[in-house]
Amino acid sequence: MSESNASRNDLVLSVNAGSSSLKISLYQALKYEIPSSNHEEPVKLLLTSSISNISAPPAKFSFKLLSDADTTTTSNNDNNKNVKDQLIDSIKDHASAFAHFVHHLVNATGINQNRIAHICHRVVHGGDYHEPIVISDETYHHIENLSDLAPLHNGAALAVIKSCISDLPNANSIAFFDTAFHRSIPSHIASYAIDQTIAKKRGLKKYGFHGLSYAFILRSVAKFFQRPADSLNLIVLHLGSGASACAIRDGKSLDTSMGLTPLNGLPGATRSGAIDPSLIFHYTNKAGRITHDPNMAINLHVTQAEQILNSKSGWKSLTGTTDFAVISQRALEGSEMYRTAFDLFVDRILNYIGSYHLKLDAQVDALVFSGGIGEKSRELRKAVGQKLKCIGYNNLDDEKNTRVDDVEGSVVEIDVRTNNESEKRILVCRTDEQFEMARQCALEDKFW
Amino acid sequence: MSESNASRNDLVLSVNAGSSSLKISLYQALKYEIPSSNHEEPVKLLLTSSISNISAPPAKFSFKLLSDADTTTTSNNDNNKNVKDQLIDSIKDHASAFAHFVHHLVNATGINQNRIAHICHRVVHGGDYHEPIVISDETYHHIENLSDLAPLHNGAALAVIKSCISDLPNANSIAFFDTAFHRSIPSHIASYAIDQTIAKKRGLKKYGFHGLSYAFILRSVAKFFQRPADSLNLIVLHLGSGASACAIRDGKSLDTSMGLTPLNGLPGATRSGAIDPSLIFHYTNKAGRITHDPNMAINLHVTQAEQILNSKSGWKSLTGTTDFAVISQRALEGSEMYRTAFDLFVDRILNYIGSYHLKLDAQVDALVFSGGIGEKSRELRKAVGQKLKCIGYNNLDDEKNTRVDDVEGSVVEIDVRTNNESEKRILVCRTDEQFEMARQCALEDKFW
Repeated sequence: MSESNASRNDLVLSVNAGSSSLKISLYQALKYEIPSSNHEEPVKLLLTSSISNISAPPAKFSFKLLSDADTTTTSNNDNNKNVKDQLIDSIKDHASAFAHFVHHLVNATGINQNRIAHICHRVVHGGDYHEPIVISDETYHHIENLSDLAPLHNGAALAVIKSCISDLPNANSIAFFDTAFHRSIPSHIASYAIDQTIAKKRGLKKYGFHGLSYAFILRSVAKFFQRPADSLNLIVLHLGSGASACAIRDGKSLDTSMGLTPLNGLPGATRSGAIDPSLIFHYTNKAGRITHDPNMAINLHVTQAEQILNSKSGWKSLTGTTDFAVISQRALEGSEMYRTAFDLFVDRILNYIGSYHLKLDAQVDALVFSGGIGEKSRELRKAVGQKLKCIGYNNLDDEKNTRVDDVEGSVVEIDVRTNNESEKRILVCRTDEQFEMARQCALEDKFW
Repeated sequence: MSESNASRNDLVLSVNAGSSSLKISLYQALKYEIPSSNHEEPVKLLLTSSISNISAPPAKFSFKLLSDADTTTTSNNDNNKNVKDQLIDSIKDHASAFAHFVHHLVNATGINQNRIAHICHRVVHGGDYHEPIVISDETYHHIENLSDLAPLHNGAALAVIKSCISDLPNANSIAFFDTAFHRSIPSHIASYAIDQTIAKKRGLKKYGFHGLSYAFILRSVAKFFQRPADSLNLIVLHLGSGASACAIRDGKSLDTSMGLTPLNGLPGATRSGAIDPSLIFHYTNKAGRITHDPNMAINLHVTQAEQILNSKSGWKSLTGTTDFAVISQRALEGSEMYRTAFDLFVDRILNYIGSYHLKLDAQVDALVFSGGIGEKSRELRKAVGQKLKCIGYNNLDDEKNTRVDDVEGSVVEIDVRTNNESEKRILVCRTDEQFEMARQCALEDKFW
């Protein structure tokens, strides 16, 4: 603890790799600051960056340094640091995208890359890993093997992990798994009614995803209610281009809508969500064949079925757009096609709320909206909220629901508060998976 | 109306063909009896017959004439009429099974086969047929084409319809569809989030099944409550070797758990029910290939995926038995494997009850158990019933729940009645799809 900030390796990078995107946040771990008790959180955000269109070049690069970030060693001015949607021809894949970020970080901010102690990687499918793990040759290959279960979802993260090991050799790469939060799901809920010998051999069960988001939301809501996390029963909706729901009992995942893979459950931007398991064989007689789509080139062993249901379905297939704000607006304007898509999403969401409400014995502290759509779409929150009064949720407050963006903080309450303690509250939570990884990393002594 | 009973064609045969079984009931339509107002129902059961093990010979034949059936023209004594589990070597398929029934009917009871005016066939998948139809060359071929959507489910009925046309040429064959009851499901609930051009072209949407059973139950519960059927909101569980749930609003199907095919939703004796749509591609890399299983010989175009998920999953795959009574008993005795299977079924049932309760705005008149397991398993009813108090269902009455078999009639109430009108009741209904077809047939003037 005697070293100064400047010479400690006190930075944590959080990396969230999607199939065609990369989101990166840099944090300062505050554990070496004295007095540490001044800080509510163990990490402080320094900058964010994102790269999109990686698989449809030219890629777009954005980089934003926070105004109070400590970059005293920088030699550049702010205009060069912050960029938005810059087209970068040299980015061809996740490796070149990450390399471009490191180059910009070092050159534009002057932050010494050797200060980065840990790089947290969001890995979608963790199989039976229940905790974050430091990447070694052995664990890398284990995750690579796991990826047979999630070829569409783990590939990008594995590519970035490789880049980090070569581009930032002094930093630890740590894998954080979206499945880990759901380790508590009881076996009768996680099991499928299929041949158990094959199920055990191939790991075919409900894993659940969005776990880093659910961990962030649980902790944030506990703080908001000033109650211990393990005393809370919540129904959480993570609604984005990928969407899922989670029933949390006593601070632990009891059930979730995604399954063996993120395909199951709620529909998304290009994902079908739950369908009749026979459907794909009536959709195409090539369902089981390996796809040769060039966009899938990094993902071996993806069947046409999985490609169609993950990448060519969802809102996009119903309406032509992946933008739920457009769907919501057009539905309001009276277009039948958009109305059906909007109502379909509300219907599927209600399926899970009704189910989880009952499975939590109607002992629910709050329903929480989160994710891009959950945080932004007041129309969706209103449509869902209106249906919930009959099972004891507080009425939605129209004013609060409309003004969520005006309220600061991770959690915003949008219901009409009553004095009835048994009524269930309705919240919006601005989820942050990258923060959750950095926070867990900073708090875990074994990593330091 | 001047002709006597004996010379009228006043009999209705109801035929329910399963993949390896045939259940047949013979009814007398009472429309020619005077005064007709004496009868509560438009048909009277004369006899029942069943043939099992058709695809695993020797088949077993049973035949039971009801004691008050009018068979005054018979020349045989009762001992020859009624048989139970007789092994019949000549039965090789559904056609020879039906021929054996007709032979026994004529020879053992002396009933003149020409008195049979109509033969009602339960056809599982009716596509967009919303009403029963008389079989002609044209409608037969239409149903045959439809069967591409349900090769595993319509094949047996089509085989029996062919036999009826040749063996009983004077009778009309009428197809009754299990899908018809669900025609009222709104499009945002029935649609899948998939390519809509392909969906429309191939008819890929939620159809729902067990419709004849739900129609019988709705009518029976309306009678039990002495209320019009179209005033009732019900959650109905049809739990047998095939199992489904249905939300009924104002006497119409609002949602149901089966989908494009009967595979979706609740697990069954050998069916997986809902699973992650990706699962089968991780289960076998031959998912999309056509099966060559000799048991599937009459069903062309069935993929290995569909065969595995329909015929090699469910209880059978979890526990080795298809008998839910055994699962329930062993679970009570403490066996973990059976306990998981039992709890898994309860969990999936609660998913649908919770969902439908919410989608019916908590305005539910009753939860109804039916089907082999629903009618027989007091343990299952107890396990489900115990979870429902929290959402306003009456407590289960242990005594009534145990003694369902001692109570006559189609509907038995098993809850503790309260004076609270808003509490929801819990019923058992002895469903009867064959009766429902005969009844609908007798009431439909255009058929006579």
